[in-house]
Amino acid sequence: MADSKAALEESAKNVEEEVRRVVEQAKELQDSVASSISKASSDELSLRHRALSLDSSIRRLQSLLRSLLSYHLLDPKLVNKLQEELERARCIMVDGDAATYLRGKNQGGFLRMFLGPINVRASRKDVQLKVKEEYNSYRDRTALLFLLFPSILLILRSWIWDGCLPAFPVQLYQAWLLFLYTGLALRENILRENGSDIHPWWIYHHYCAMIMALVSLTWEVKGQPNCAQKQRGVQLFLQWAMMQGVAMLLQNRYQRQRLYTRIALGKAKRMDVVWGETAGVDGQLWLLCPILFILQGFEAYVGLLLLQTAYLGVVSEWQVFFCGILFVIMAIVNFANTVQTLLAKSRFKAKMKRIKVKSLHVK
Amino acid sequence: MADSKAALEESAKNVEEEVRRVVEQAKELQDSVASSISKASSDELSLRHRALSLDSSIRRLQSLLRSLLSYHLLDPKLVNKLQEELERARCIMVDGDAATYLRGKNQGGFLRMFLGPINVRASRKDVQLKVKEEYNSYRDRTALLFLLFPSILLILRSWIWDGCLPAFPVQLYQAWLLFLYTGLALRENILRENGSDIHPWWIYHHYCAMIMALVSLTWEVKGQPNCAQKQRGVQLFLQWAMMQGVAMLLQNRYQRQRLYTRIALGKAKRMDVVWGETAGVDGQLWLLCPILFILQGFEAYVGLLLLQTAYLGVVSEWQVFFCGILFVIMAIVNFANTVQTLLAKSRFKAKMKRIKVKSLHVK
Repeated sequence: MADSKAALEESAKNVEEEVRRVVEQAKELQDSVASSISKASSDELSLRHRALSLDSSIRRLQSLLRSLLSYHLLDPKLVNKLQEELERARCIMVDGDAATYLRGKNQGGFLRMFLGPINVRASRKDVQLKVKEEYNSYRDRTALLFLLFPSILLILRSWIWDGCLPAFPVQLYQAWLLFLYTGLALRENILRENGSDIHPWWIYHHYCAMIMALVSLTWEVKGQPNCAQKQRGVQLFLQWAMMQGVAMLLQNRYQRQRLYTRIALGKAKRMDVVWGETAGVDGQLWLLCPILFILQGFEAYVGLLLLQTAYLGVVSEWQVFFCGILFVIMAIVNFANTVQTLLAKSRFKAKMKRIKVKSLHVK
Repeated sequence: MADSKAALEESAKNVEEEVRRVVEQAKELQDSVASSISKASSDELSLRHRALSLDSSIRRLQSLLRSLLSYHLLDPKLVNKLQEELERARCIMVDGDAATYLRGKNQGGFLRMFLGPINVRASRKDVQLKVKEEYNSYRDRTALLFLLFPSILLILRSWIWDGCLPAFPVQLYQAWLLFLYTGLALRENILRENGSDIHPWWIYHHYCAMIMALVSLTWEVKGQPNCAQKQRGVQLFLQWAMMQGVAMLLQNRYQRQRLYTRIALGKAKRMDVVWGETAGVDGQLWLLCPILFILQGFEAYVGLLLLQTAYLGVVSEWQVFFCGILFVIMAIVNFANTVQTLLAKSRFKAKMKRIKVKSLHVK
C-alpha cells in the first residue's frame, strides 16, 4: 500500500508532462493518418488514369490489327503473334491488381436498395479471392441443405404425417428459401462489383426465386380433408427442390474443376463464376446436361400443373396462378440459356478446328 | 477510302513497336499498383499500431488521474484541466481519421450471414458521413411510407372494401415491412462497423420486426363472413403502424436537431445515431415522450389482444400467439429502454448541477 502510494507520488510529478505528450501525439497521429489517406487517394487517381488510358490503347491496337489483317497489310502470322501479346497485356490488366481501377463507379440497384451507397469492392486481390472462396463454400452448404431439407419433409410426410404436410415446417422451409436466395443474390452482386463475370441471368434467376419464395409464404398450406390433392403443388415443388440439390452439388464440383482448368489455360480469371447450366468439364457434360434438362422439364411441368389447378378452380388463390407462370418462365429461360451456352461451345470448338486447319495450311 | 488505307499502311509500320510498348506499360502498371497496395497496407499496419498504443496511453493516464485525485496527491483544479486535455486527445482519435484503426476486425454475424466476409468499412471520413446521411434520408422516406401505406389501407377499407380488407394489399404491405426492416437492420449493422454508437436494442428491435413481418406473411387474412371480428388484429396493427409513422417523423426531426446540438457541444460524433426513444431536444421531449409511451402502451395492447384471441380460440393459428408474445416483449423492452434513457438523462443533469455547485464552492 505504502509502495503503491509512493509510486503514485512519483508519477504525480510527471503526469502533466505525460498528458501534454499524449495530446501532442494524438495531433501528430491525426496528421499522419490524414496525409496517408490523401496520398492514397491521389495515388489511386493517377493509377486509375494510367489504367484507363492503357485499356483504351489496347482496344485501339486490337481494332487496328483487325483492319490490317482484313486489308492484307500485314503478315497474318505476325498479326497473330501481336494479337497474342495484346491479349497477354489485357490479361495482366484484368487479372492483376490494376483491375480495380478499370471498373465503373456506379453500383447495382439491388445492393443500393438493401445496403445504401456502401463500397463493397475489395482493393486487394487476396480479399477478393477470399470473397469468391466463401461464395463457393456457401453454395456447397446450400446445395447440401437443398437436398436434405425437402427430403426430410417428404420422408416425414409419408412416415409420420400420414400424407399430409403440416403448415409450419413447410413455411419454415419457404422462409429459409427466401433468406437463402436473398443471400445468394446479394453475394452475387458483390462478386460482380469485385470483377466477376457472372452471367446476369443467374442473378435475375435468384430475384425470381426470391419473389417466388415470398409469394409461397403468403400461400396457405391446406390441411385435411382431401389434403393429398390440395398439397399436390407443394409436394411436386419439394421433389423438384431435391433434384435441384443434386444438380447443384454436381454443378459446384464440375464448375470448380472447369474453373481451375480454364485458369490453367489462361482463359479465365479467378473471380469468374462458371455457373452456367453447362458448367461441366466437357466429358462430364454427359452426366450434367441430361440432369439439367430433366430439371427444367420438371420445372415447366410443375408450373403447368399449378396453372391447370388454378384454371380448373381447385385452388383459386392468386398465388397458384402467379407461381405457375413464374415456374414456366424460369424453365423456358433456363432452357434457352443452356441451349445457347451449348451452341456457343460447339461454335467455339468448330472455330478452333478451322483455325487449326488454317494454320496447318499456312505452314 | 484511299486516304484511310494510306493511313493504315503508315500505322502498319510501327504497330509492332506500339504493341511492345503497350505490353511493357501493362507490366509497369501492374508493378506500380502492386507496390502502391503493399505500401498502403504497411502504412496501415504502422498507423494502426500507433493508434492502439496511443489509445492505451490515454486510458492509463485517465485511470492514473483518477487515483491521484482520490489520494489527494494533486490539485483538483489541475486534475480537472488534465482530464479535459486527455478528453480532447481522445476526441481527436475517435472523431478523426484515426478512428478506423481503433475498431476491431471481427464483423457482426448478421452482415456475414447475408453478405459473406466482405469489408463494409469506409476508410475515408467523408464516405462514412455520406453513408450516415443516406441512412437518415432513408429513415425519412420510410417514416413517410409508414404513415401513408397503412392509412391508405384503412381508408380504402371503410370506403371501398366495406370493412373487410382483401388479402393481397395486406400481404403486399407485410412484404414491404419485411424488406424495410431487413434494409434497416443491414444499414444499421454497416453504420456500426463504420463507428456509429447506435444502441444495440434498436438493431435487435429490427430483427424482431423482421421476424414478425415474416410470420405475419404466413398468416392467412380471413375474409367474409364475420370478417370485422377476424381482422381485428390486422386493423389494430395498421393503426399502430400509422402512429409509429408519426412518432418516427417526429423522432427523425428531433434527433437531427439534437445530434447537431451535441456535435456543437462536442459531446457527439457525426456518426452517432441518436435514435433513442428520447431522441428529442429537451424542450421537445414534452411532445415526444407522451407519444412514445402511448405507442408502447398500444403495442402491448395489440399484443395482449392477440393473445386473448388465441386463448379464446377465435383464431387458432400459431402465428396469432407468436405475434402476440413478440408484441408484448417488444413493448416491455421499448418501455424499459425509454425509462432507462430518461433516468440516465436526469442523473446526468443532477451530476452537472453538483459539479457546478462544487466548482462555485472551490472558487
